[in-house]
Amino acid sequence: MKHYLSVSLISALSLGLASCVSVETDFDFDDPKPAPEWSLVIHGGAGVITREAMSADTEAAYLTALNAALSTGSEMLSSGEPAIDVVETLIRNFEDDPLFNAGRGAVMTETGGFSLDASIMVGDTLDAGAVAGLSNVRHPITAARKAMENSPHVMLASEGADQFSAEQGLEIVDPGYFYTERRWESLLRALERRGVEPPPNLYGPAETTDLSFPDDRKFGTVGVVAMDQSGNIVAGTSTGGTTAKRWGRVGDSPIIGAGTYAKSGTCGVSATGTGEYFIRLAIAYAICARIEQSEENAQQASDHIIHTELTELGGDGGVIVLGPDGEPAWSFNTEGMYRGFATSRGEQVVEIYEFNETAFD
Amino acid sequence: MKHYLSVSLISALSLGLASCVSVETDFDFDDPKPAPEWSLVIHGGAGVITREAMSADTEAAYLTALNAALSTGSEMLSSGEPAIDVVETLIRNFEDDPLFNAGRGAVMTETGGFSLDASIMVGDTLDAGAVAGLSNVRHPITAARKAMENSPHVMLASEGADQFSAEQGLEIVDPGYFYTERRWESLLRALERRGVEPPPNLYGPAETTDLSFPDDRKFGTVGVVAMDQSGNIVAGTSTGGTTAKRWGRVGDSPIIGAGTYAKSGTCGVSATGTGEYFIRLAIAYAICARIEQSEENAQQASDHIIHTELTELGGDGGVIVLGPDGEPAWSFNTEGMYRGFATSRGEQVVEIYEFNETAFD
Repeated sequence: MKHYLSVSLISALSLGLASCVSVETDFDFDDPKPAPEWSLVIHGGAGVITREAMSADTEAAYLTALNAALSTGSEMLSSGEPAIDVVETLIRNFEDDPLFNAGRGAVMTETGGFSLDASIMVGDTLDAGAVAGLSNVRHPITAARKAMENSPHVMLASEGADQFSAEQGLEIVDPGYFYTERRWESLLRALERRGVEPPPNLYGPAETTDLSFPDDRKFGTVGVVAMDQSGNIVAGTSTGGTTAKRWGRVGDSPIIGAGTYAKSGTCGVSATGTGEYFIRLAIAYAICARIEQSEENAQQASDHIIHTELTELGGDGGVIVLGPDGEPAWSFNTEGMYRGFATSRGEQVVEIYEFNETAFD
Repeated sequence: MKHYLSVSLISALSLGLASCVSVETDFDFDDPKPAPEWSLVIHGGAGVITREAMSADTEAAYLTALNAALSTGSEMLSSGEPAIDVVETLIRNFEDDPLFNAGRGAVMTETGGFSLDASIMVGDTLDAGAVAGLSNVRHPITAARKAMENSPHVMLASEGADQFSAEQGLEIVDPGYFYTERRWESLLRALERRGVEPPPNLYGPAETTDLSFPDDRKFGTVGVVAMDQSGNIVAGTSTGGTTAKRWGRVGDSPIIGAGTYAKSGTCGVSATGTGEYFIRLAIAYAICARIEQSEENAQQASDHIIHTELTELGGDGGVIVLGPDGEPAWSFNTEGMYRGFATSRGEQVVEIYEFNETAFD
């Protein structure tokens, strides 16, 4: 950690810049700085995340998880490891962490099961892999990488994707592995609102947590975008989708161009939010196209797509972005987004709320 | 038909313009003309389609099918019917026609089954619907429309998509309905190249055709883009995917932004080709983004994406496009693409080959 300013020091610095902040953040992404040798930006979902609805313990747990991811990624990138390994490693860790809606801790479908989606894209080559509707693969992001590297296809779905993952030697788990009481309770609430009888609880009860969560129907998709020292930008996203989803619903996370996109020298994007809107606007690609074809930088392009196009259509959520030279940005129109970034310049920042008025108090 | 010039007359006119043609076509999309009140462009797949490999009877069958679609669509649009009904109707007809790789006549998966994909997008509202991996729904394009109109989701996959279609009252068929000897033989050839034992033939034999086809591993995806008299641009695509596809492969056709996109006043696009490349380049959205953000018209934007980006990445295929004012365009880097367009100006044109040197002989 010696290369990085502590979170509290960065926090103090960023609070000092409060007079020049955008609506999203307490620091200024537009402040001229030398381009980073490597950089990393992460998210753990966006939604109605307010200070009022968040307990101190829950906030601390998210901050700890996000900082751990940034520290791991920073160590790998500063050691020269490739961005693709960083993206896969960090997302695997998120998939193992029940705090997030990906892998263990995923939200449940209407029928009380799990249907996991992930995608990954390599900006140097535009290679991409995606999986949708996995039911028993512990690490969907690794399945997406294997689809990219070891199949002639980009996107695999449902039983076929499970079968491919098994053939690739990935760790297969009983679906009960993904189960958490928190998500079962979310399912029951969602079905009650819908007026639908709950399915049998096939996997519970499970160990419970003392943490309390804000209303979490849509939270917790995870994403990582990293630029390594060779300039390769890689983006990845993993999710359990939306609570009580039906009929094999596929959201934006496994859609290259919607939930994930990367093109080295232009951008890398991972998205989270109401996936249907992100598909209809091809959000991830749209941001890259604006960066490439306009004078806008990553922050401006992201803000336009999120605060104008997404908001006008009625969708909500956010994106994390690396710009052409690896400069981090993010934008969201929700009350909060679990997020953080780190760069070779020694920055390491995590934030949760819109104005971040409390995360670093 | 009284409102339209005959195909042979248009052919004669277009041959007369041969000195100013682009590499794609015998007529000049850039020739200044009044904007159409309605317009329609269709494709039936792109690939290694050469005059040498095509029998006269097969060519005639495709020309007849394409002209029938244009005539039906023209009658609907000139009567003021909405573009979405035109797109759905024409694609349903293609899905019923074993000439095309969609619905009946779809190519077969590695295991000897069918896995059908479709999507539709409405340019006025950016509403969209998509289905992937259907196994028993006669008209996948209607399933995509129902997903758009009657589900909270954009994209449904596999058994869930079949189930949704049945709940919506769509016509469910035995998978044998989709079976054709031509596609079984294609599967056998593909598996032989791959060194894989063929699966049992669950559905054959079926009625055979006297027609002979060029090598057809990837041909026959169908797409329609229509602009109605209100200016609403709607795009739709339907396919059986690629022969011998594995592991629940999802191609570009059901991916909003890759195989299909529509935004009234900007563009409508339907794509066909090596789907993995179309996903990685977000081809359909990319063309719309170039039209919106550059000075390029639909033809120029399409040519850039197909002849530069797609070709440089190693992919092949093509697109049909309507531009901001409904002007038709197409672009492809293959030897041929089954295609046609019609407009309120009385044009009705169908073409097959790259230089179209023979279709209208």
